[in-house]
Amino acid sequence: MKLVRFQDNTAVLAGVLEQDIIRVIEGDFFGNYRVTERLVPLNSVRLLAPCAPSKAVCVGLNYHDHAKEMNLPLPAEPLIFLKPSSALVGPDEAIVYPAISRNLQFEAELAIVVKRQAKNVAAAEAADYILGYTCANDVTARDLQHKDGQWTRAKSFDTFLPLGPCIETAIDPGNVAIKLYRNGKVKQASHTGNLIFKVPELLAFVSEVMTLYPGDVILTGTPSGVGPMEAGDTVSVELEGIGELTNRIVKG
Amino acid sequence: MKLVRFQDNTAVLAGVLEQDIIRVIEGDFFGNYRVTERLVPLNSVRLLAPCAPSKAVCVGLNYHDHAKEMNLPLPAEPLIFLKPSSALVGPDEAIVYPAISRNLQFEAELAIVVKRQAKNVAAAEAADYILGYTCANDVTARDLQHKDGQWTRAKSFDTFLPLGPCIETAIDPGNVAIKLYRNGKVKQASHTGNLIFKVPELLAFVSEVMTLYPGDVILTGTPSGVGPMEAGDTVSVELEGIGELTNRIVKG
Repeated sequence: MKLVRFQDNTAVLAGVLEQDIIRVIEGDFFGNYRVTERLVPLNSVRLLAPCAPSKAVCVGLNYHDHAKEMNLPLPAEPLIFLKPSSALVGPDEAIVYPAISRNLQFEAELAIVVKRQAKNVAAAEAADYILGYTCANDVTARDLQHKDGQWTRAKSFDTFLPLGPCIETAIDPGNVAIKLYRNGKVKQASHTGNLIFKVPELLAFVSEVMTLYPGDVILTGTPSGVGPMEAGDTVSVELEGIGELTNRIVKG
Repeated sequence: MKLVRFQDNTAVLAGVLEQDIIRVIEGDFFGNYRVTERLVPLNSVRLLAPCAPSKAVCVGLNYHDHAKEMNLPLPAEPLIFLKPSSALVGPDEAIVYPAISRNLQFEAELAIVVKRQAKNVAAAEAADYILGYTCANDVTARDLQHKDGQWTRAKSFDTFLPLGPCIETAIDPGNVAIKLYRNGKVKQASHTGNLIFKVPELLAFVSEVMTLYPGDVILTGTPSGVGPMEAGDTVSVELEGIGELTNRIVKG
């Protein structure tokens, strides 16, 4: 099932996407909701980010192919960092190239969307705490990342957390193809079977540290092939069975 | 003026603290509010963290005395990291010593409380965006900080963001004494005159990266003397003119 949020005049509505039609729901994805009779054509609305996380927890080096590409040993445990909620944008919104960076880069990622409050969740129980999965772009000012050592500034600019287009509730997160297109050309192409730490382990690891709330996201890391973006570019993250998250780059 | 929040049966109330009396307000600190006739004795309530930040932006090495102690050159610009809202606790709440750490440490800090939405604010205009200041303890699992390299995990456990006891709106943030007491003994003693990057510069620097919302906090860094805490300890951050934020350490 594909869950979406969209702007309807002044209200934010949510619904279930079926082909090109959204069935509007009452309630929200994280609690009780009811599918109404109201149908809205997908092409008549602007989709929003499918959730509004209080925080995004991101995982560093987590693809075998990326570790190989970087000539780095496999990590013994996940390395995490945070993006703030202020960085969130949805499908087709602009990613703003900060004036103080000279090297803005894309990172295609599978994002876990948390369903219910989670603390100290065992990996075997993780599925009960996950609503579904969406596409994410872990936008990074690579020059600031290297300059600072700490990754926070480089990863936290407004617009650096595109999520969307929907939350897919019924895929196996360990078995989907992941791709990034820059101006229509494939730049990253991998598969979540290459994840070093799998989805259940990641949820367990993060929830041992901090309480996760409904709508919070965990970005699971990026595969090989990360590279630069320029103002005017269009970048798309494509995850098999979920869809495509497209954003354009504008000068800040 | 000292602004506080407190628990009143099932409701969260806010007020202005005058000596030992809280004058309850209607509305909130960040918008319009009205001081009511209702008076509540301070000793009859449990104070909460004085704000509920969507994020805490923290500054690394930012005291001349701490840089000297660590034998580190002065940084050319602020180094920032994030703590999630899930880490928030108030005065007299427990700080939980994580089972996976063997070296939990205190860091006394002055926290800036943001008044209104702030993006690309010039240092000269910063005061207009600041509601006031409170005490913070940047609780850190030092062993995990060194192990990970990235500081996020070490700084982001639940209970690692104690704030309080009040927001003081009328102090000069560049001219207050800061102390940390562990079990009544002074462990850190400095003065915000030793800040490398001052409050207006910090607000400008952070707001160039990310939008700050009302109630968000910027932790301005810790002076020399950081050290360990053990389960059973009581630690207090004292800032001149603001008050004392006390928390006890409990085993996780």
